[in-house]
Amino acid sequence: MPTPSPIEQLIIQVGRLPGLGPRSARRVVLQMIKKPDALMQPLIGAMQGVMGSIVACGTCGNLDTHDPCRICSDTKRDGKMICVVEELSDLWAMERSHLYRGLYHVLGGVLSAMDQIGPEKLNVETLVRRAASEEVEEIILATNATVDGQTTAHYLTERLKDAKVKITRLAQGIPLGGELDYLDDGTLGAALKARLPF
Amino acid sequence: MPTPSPIEQLIIQVGRLPGLGPRSARRVVLQMIKKPDALMQPLIGAMQGVMGSIVACGTCGNLDTHDPCRICSDTKRDGKMICVVEELSDLWAMERSHLYRGLYHVLGGVLSAMDQIGPEKLNVETLVRRAASEEVEEIILATNATVDGQTTAHYLTERLKDAKVKITRLAQGIPLGGELDYLDDGTLGAALKARLPF
Repeated sequence: MPTPSPIEQLIIQVGRLPGLGPRSARRVVLQMIKKPDALMQPLIGAMQGVMGSIVACGTCGNLDTHDPCRICSDTKRDGKMICVVEELSDLWAMERSHLYRGLYHVLGGVLSAMDQIGPEKLNVETLVRRAASEEVEEIILATNATVDGQTTAHYLTERLKDAKVKITRLAQGIPLGGELDYLDDGTLGAALKARLPF
Repeated sequence: MPTPSPIEQLIIQVGRLPGLGPRSARRVVLQMIKKPDALMQPLIGAMQGVMGSIVACGTCGNLDTHDPCRICSDTKRDGKMICVVEELSDLWAMERSHLYRGLYHVLGGVLSAMDQIGPEKLNVETLVRRAASEEVEEIILATNATVDGQTTAHYLTERLKDAKVKITRLAQGIPLGGELDYLDDGTLGAALKARLPF
């Protein structure tokens, strides 16, 4: 087996990225080597700007290039609210909506009996400490609407009951543009139960 | 507008790659920053191994990290055959099949009246010179089976008629696993015309 050429090695590495198979990796590399200055050089630069400086924020668990992270160190954000999310991707989703201006807390997963994930594997203790601080007034539990996500939310409510904070959770109901005919019974039931005066 | 953070810049650069939109770019970057040593570092290394050393092979037009390219400088390959392809991606497709052990010639496009691409914009002169060499015995025209591809093949036949080489083209017919019911009339016609004794 001959050693792969530099180009073949690049195809292998690109193909290891999530969502890219060998075919799309070849397509990416083909464009990269056709336009090295326009595509490859800026990408190398951007990766080097991030590589080596990724740290988990000691306050909220967000991954960023410095600790405390951009969000925790942003004085314009509302320190009275903490939104608890499962994963970094959930924090990113919340940020994309531009609707929330408080702080976050990234658990790094959910309680799961099946995967043997107990509270000690999650970023819970720091949350309990943060909740005890004077400044915090509300904690929004934004774990996913799955069984594990809801179990985790219940566990957190229990752990946070001594803290003098309001604990809320995201509303469940019909998604925008959702059609009743296509909704699952669980969502329909939740929406009916949480119905509001018109 | 605040300057994008290093992570946001990385998402922008990844999102510029072909086939990746903002959503898949975020997914890629999320994994990159979760596993910088396993995913990002080898990719930076592979890109740096390629970047700055991409050259077009002076003989065949293939892009590689050195000139002459790996294929042209491979003494185990059959120098008697030259397979003429439109693009680098076609050369890669031929190489993936592992069925051809001769040399290549990359035109860098096809003749196209619509896109105003004439012969002077293609890598034709070097091909004519190569065809005149003693060693070459056969030139396989492997341009695509499109109107422009076939026009280009006809033009090349004309240009190569003084060279003492055999000029061939890829067979047209039913693709492997193809069902007659789903084939277009053109393919069916070509397959019928080029029918062979059973």
